[in-house]
Amino acid sequence: MKLIGGALVVDKFSFGLWTVGWQGRDPFGHATRPALDAPTAVRKLAELGAWGITFHDNDLIPFDADAAERDKRVSAFRAALDETGLVVPMVTTDLFQHPVFKDGGFTSNDRNVRRFALRKVLRNLELAAELGAETIVLWGGREGSEVDAGKDVRAALDRYREALDTIAQYSEDQGYGLKFALEPKPNEPRGDILLPTIGHALAFINELEHHALFGVNPEVGHEQMAGLNFVHGIAQALWQGKLFHIDLNGQKGPRYDQDFVFGHGDLLSAFFLVDLLEHGGYEGPRHFDYKPLRTEDLDGVWASAAANMRTYKLLAERAEAFRADQEVQEALKTSGVYELAEPTLSPGESIQDFIKADDVDVTAAAERGYGFVRLSQLALEHVLGAR
Amino acid sequence: MKLIGGALVVDKFSFGLWTVGWQGRDPFGHATRPALDAPTAVRKLAELGAWGITFHDNDLIPFDADAAERDKRVSAFRAALDETGLVVPMVTTDLFQHPVFKDGGFTSNDRNVRRFALRKVLRNLELAAELGAETIVLWGGREGSEVDAGKDVRAALDRYREALDTIAQYSEDQGYGLKFALEPKPNEPRGDILLPTIGHALAFINELEHHALFGVNPEVGHEQMAGLNFVHGIAQALWQGKLFHIDLNGQKGPRYDQDFVFGHGDLLSAFFLVDLLEHGGYEGPRHFDYKPLRTEDLDGVWASAAANMRTYKLLAERAEAFRADQEVQEALKTSGVYELAEPTLSPGESIQDFIKADDVDVTAAAERGYGFVRLSQLALEHVLGAR
Amino acid sequence: MKLIGGALVVDKFSFGLWTVGWQGRDPFGHATRPALDAPTAVRKLAELGAWGITFHDNDLIPFDADAAERDKRVSAFRAALDETGLVVPMVTTDLFQHPVFKDGGFTSNDRNVRRFALRKVLRNLELAAELGAETIVLWGGREGSEVDAGKDVRAALDRYREALDTIAQYSEDQGYGLKFALEPKPNEPRGDILLPTIGHALAFINELEHHALFGVNPEVGHEQMAGLNFVHGIAQALWQGKLFHIDLNGQKGPRYDQDFVFGHGDLLSAFFLVDLLEHGGYEGPRHFDYKPLRTEDLDGVWASAAANMRTYKLLAERAEAFRADQEVQEALKTSGVYELAEPTLSPGESIQDFIKADDVDVTAAAERGYGFVRLSQLALEHVLGAR
Amino acid sequence: MKLIGGALVVDKFSFGLWTVGWQGRDPFGHATRPALDAPTAVRKLAELGAWGITFHDNDLIPFDADAAERDKRVSAFRAALDETGLVVPMVTTDLFQHPVFKDGGFTSNDRNVRRFALRKVLRNLELAAELGAETIVLWGGREGSEVDAGKDVRAALDRYREALDTIAQYSEDQGYGLKFALEPKPNEPRGDILLPTIGHALAFINELEHHALFGVNPEVGHEQMAGLNFVHGIAQALWQGKLFHIDLNGQKGPRYDQDFVFGHGDLLSAFFLVDLLEHGGYEGPRHFDYKPLRTEDLDGVWASAAANMRTYKLLAERAEAFRADQEVQEALKTSGVYELAEPTLSPGESIQDFIKADDVDVTAAAERGYGFVRLSQLALEHVLGAR
Repeated sequence: MKLIGGALVVDKFSFGLWTVGWQGRDPFGHATRPALDAPTAVRKLAELGAWGITFHDNDLIPFDADAAERDKRVSAFRAALDETGLVVPMVTTDLFQHPVFKDGGFTSNDRNVRRFALRKVLRNLELAAELGAETIVLWGGREGSEVDAGKDVRAALDRYREALDTIAQYSEDQGYGLKFALEPKPNEPRGDILLPTIGHALAFINELEHHALFGVNPEVGHEQMAGLNFVHGIAQALWQGKLFHIDLNGQKGPRYDQDFVFGHGDLLSAFFLVDLLEHGGYEGPRHFDYKPLRTEDLDGVWASAAANMRTYKLLAERAEAFRADQEVQEALKTSGVYELAEPTLSPGESIQDFIKADDVDVTAAAERGYGFVRLSQLALEHVLGAR
Repeated sequence: MKLIGGALVVDKFSFGLWTVGWQGRDPFGHATRPALDAPTAVRKLAELGAWGITFHDNDLIPFDADAAERDKRVSAFRAALDETGLVVPMVTTDLFQHPVFKDGGFTSNDRNVRRFALRKVLRNLELAAELGAETIVLWGGREGSEVDAGKDVRAALDRYREALDTIAQYSEDQGYGLKFALEPKPNEPRGDILLPTIGHALAFINELEHHALFGVNPEVGHEQMAGLNFVHGIAQALWQGKLFHIDLNGQKGPRYDQDFVFGHGDLLSAFFLVDLLEHGGYEGPRHFDYKPLRTEDLDGVWASAAANMRTYKLLAERAEAFRADQEVQEALKTSGVYELAEPTLSPGESIQDFIKADDVDVTAAAERGYGFVRLSQLALEHVLGAR
Repeated sequence: MKLIGGALVVDKFSFGLWTVGWQGRDPFGHATRPALDAPTAVRKLAELGAWGITFHDNDLIPFDADAAERDKRVSAFRAALDETGLVVPMVTTDLFQHPVFKDGGFTSNDRNVRRFALRKVLRNLELAAELGAETIVLWGGREGSEVDAGKDVRAALDRYREALDTIAQYSEDQGYGLKFALEPKPNEPRGDILLPTIGHALAFINELEHHALFGVNPEVGHEQMAGLNFVHGIAQALWQGKLFHIDLNGQKGPRYDQDFVFGHGDLLSAFFLVDLLEHGGYEGPRHFDYKPLRTEDLDGVWASAAANMRTYKLLAERAEAFRADQEVQEALKTSGVYELAEPTLSPGESIQDFIKADDVDVTAAAERGYGFVRLSQLALEHVLGAR
Repeated sequence: MKLIGGALVVDKFSFGLWTVGWQGRDPFGHATRPALDAPTAVRKLAELGAWGITFHDNDLIPFDADAAERDKRVSAFRAALDETGLVVPMVTTDLFQHPVFKDGGFTSNDRNVRRFALRKVLRNLELAAELGAETIVLWGGREGSEVDAGKDVRAALDRYREALDTIAQYSEDQGYGLKFALEPKPNEPRGDILLPTIGHALAFINELEHHALFGVNPEVGHEQMAGLNFVHGIAQALWQGKLFHIDLNGQKGPRYDQDFVFGHGDLLSAFFLVDLLEHGGYEGPRHFDYKPLRTEDLDGVWASAAANMRTYKLLAERAEAFRADQEVQEALKTSGVYELAEPTLSPGESIQDFIKADDVDVTAAAERGYGFVRLSQLALEHVLGAR
């Protein structure tokens, strides 16, 4: 909790059930930890100070569960929620683990698979709505290809759109009032995944029938796997009014999806991200989608969960101090950061007048020093707690 | 030229004046070749079979030229065009070489620079229109930052939009009828460039006032610098009706911008790209934006220009043969490539009916082999000319 | 088989048991194919024209097998080898799947684990020797870290050396006469793996007691995950006399380890690799270490195995034709490729004389065109089967 | 200066003349800053607290300078050194800017170029020795290729070795007593550079006649361009006794060579690097090889120079506190970091005894939690100044 404008504000830290529950199975190794049941995860996360928990249908309910098994699992989960006060702000659907999804869900070349996948998501909406979730995340990790000849991408985008239009329509028809957040990723587990970046997802959303219900759920590591600046991506998503949810974690550049603890990757970028989230108008959950290292036991799992929240809070403090520092404010001004808010044309200036004018001293403008290194060093010293 | 449907169709191969004209200056070395004047480039490219030539304003007219110099240069260029029949399908504006643009053009923190940059583009439109160009390419290579604190990305996107709205408005006001193509790039020369990928550019376009006039000009190497599948990106751009122009070249993955000859990078991807361009409804120029290696003399420059066109034509032949191969057609069918064109819901099927049905044999669907490796190998053997 | 210098030479194509046997388990999905027993793999590969088969101990013998189980498995495998004539040129040890190896084998921070790992390798040597293997591959996929503070790299290299010295000593003591090939990889499954590239492994080998017994087993995809030129790496390994074995497959640059079919990645690089292997004096196995796509059924598995060999052979034919082409020979000469074989100093020239001389026309040398694009295009056209 | 073991120890911070002197010319833009003369750079760096300065021959003496010009420049430089007390710990030779080096220096396909390049380095040794330099850095930035067919890598390595053997021999003959440090880089300005990583350089050194005189000069950004862990690379170089010099700067992963201020890239890695340098026995210069951002004026240049030193010192303080923290010490122990120093075999244990024993409880070892996340978080909190 923190005090903002005289009001106590809860840190909306949430975790995926699959994060603390990850057993450490990787492409070259077996599980290193026992399975964790959902109620235990809820209780333990609450104890550590989390605010919410999220899940894929099959994190909670096994793929082959019958109705009784399903009800038992959901009841136990609800009981833990009630007991702890943890909320379920987001729910998502597993369209990737079962072999049936090996060529994708909504965009599998096999129409039967597409029908099965779409139905699986539709059926999951009711539970999401019942649990009070506001957001449905859709990660199309299997929507893609390894072989360019094997996937007609334009047809795939038609099917992707059909699926999302259907889902949104159903949510509206049922009065669930859900919002939907697409989660981009460039590759892994598919060789290349459709809608590989924040940009591609935002562009695609524009083609949807219920586009206002759709936004993005960007993940730190996913964009960094493409070598992209995550802070810039988040800023564009905010600018387009489409940052519906966010996945925080750590990554060391283009390589396999590492899902480190938040901050345990590119720390300077994490600082600027927190600065943007805290001061940029984003009010949604701070959702950690990470994997506790495979080398850790259960104690390490909980230590890693706590580390995510602790790091976020420390960076938020650093960002606060950075913004409050008079030298920083002066440096921002010198660098022209605020000047960029001024329109390029003057109020009422016509294009015809503008084009004819010759009001810029090019030599002087070319000689201006922007002072970006000074700004960068000020930020770094705030990150280091050295100012 | 090739015969399509009984008609002779010209290969619309075009080159930037700056490509064959590149003198070999790189971050660690001086020029290795003399300057090349524009009329010579026009004549030589025509001789090699090119159809069009494109340019930045300052490729043709030095930054500091007076009116007389400008007219002399333009006249000589026009004379060469008239003599050879080469067309000018696209024109672009240099907002990156002069030191005044060191923090960007449309999104420089310095408002004077923004005004200068915008005016430079506006003034360039008349020449473009006079020369019959249909497309204006806008590469914002300096629109970006190295220091996250130094650029308010949302303000920058506001200014970017302001500039593009102004340009399009002016073109409409003047009756130029131009179309505009944004060229994405993730980084270099800036640490991170705004609108880093095809997706980000498409998403941004949607926020423009005259969005219908804007599309993208993707470059092979730029997307591959982010490790993205270029063919997928082009397919999404086509799907959104936004592939207005294209830059063909070669690149070896995430590293500096290499601008190799087309095909001299990821050859399989080049094959699938040509296949998509030739069979996917794209009718614009095949524009080569490459740099002849710095180790080459002028003979090597012309050999490299010819190599671009020769490689494209060879790949087009291979793609033709691939599509015509009955075994390929059968393999595409087996892999379900055509099945993806079928809507997931049946005609008239309601969502309510659909959700309740249980018409998929999951086990059978999970066991289906998609035959993608066979397809991939068939394609590879066509590329190798081995079928 | 091919005819070289009047003699029939067998193509030494070999496969890992774990390649065709891969069941498709990945970080986000369950197995998509049934387990494949070793004798079936042997028979099927023999049928497809393979020459050899290789394995990790636990590909053949389950981790927890008792002696009877072990003998049964080995006998059945031997029977299939005898029946088909397939050889076992290489054997390796699994130090990565079992959770005990989560922090590494030879360099685990836990000494008990180090002892267990070292013993596992030592015990595997006897079987390798009995089956006639000449080479032991050592892939230290778990030797590394995610957390810099958690691994004293210099101590780890001490332990790595201790393990390898012990293994080589034991092989010599027992008279096995084995050679050892280290397989570098930059990351995955660990955040960063020790000895991440060919170079690091070669450098490390030099510190070993029995360094003459050690060489490298580079894998196409592993070097390309670091964005390195695989052909250059192989050339350096050959130059240092250390190319003991090779893993052929396909990869699309820095991302997760894709293990595509050979050639189904960077095709031009695959061509130059085959050219180097065929003409560079390497006489060892052409070992395919790939994974049949998870989307494939068993038919697809065998199609992919065949595709590896077919692609290699086609590229070998293309390389042969490339070298035999008179225009290529002339272009190689013009480019100075052969001139590089001439020592820089003249025979008998003293350094003192050399330093004083002034025998180079710098201007002329600076103007020389090397003709590399022409060479590159000749190679590309040979790859395309277009010459 | 800092107090170590009761003695005042100078921080050996050094800068390349070409760093603060960089005028901002990049592949897409002209210079943004005026040239800086060497004596001014010396005086200004001394004022900021630097200890040493380094240079390429042509940073100080223009390529075409005659003897008089050369003497004038050297004298002025010496005067500034004498005046300020700055030392010249390292000198290097420019074999990349002039067009004559477009295909390399020591490994150019053109023998005349090789002779010119080798002579240029030899002639530069005298000045280096006179100025008291101990180390000669050799960065072979042009030794490489874009076209695999155009470079016989094994012949190139022969020539590379010939050149280095000659240089070392000459230094020994003249009694200069110089040491030589090879600087690896994977690519840029060449498509692929020979000896692309620390590992490749270390491996190559082993083949040199005077190998004891050769070590490496790794650069942060160069290894990170290949996605490699710089700290691991430095640790291996130290382990092999070959860390002769180091280039400190910042980089954001695989992309163009960014040469940011030290720390302004991967900050956590910078922390662990400083920790290793300060506590790992390296006593050489802390040499900053960075480029002041092109957006900065001269004030920004000096601010950036100061920022490098300030960041290093802050990180050294953080590393000191990290090591002194009892909880960290306890965590290091729990994680087994010190346990890795214990040999795997017991003193006097024979391999035969070892192989037969069965002394490891595999289940227990598999269940051990290593506590690496805790360690990582402790380090991060020290970096943040939060402990």
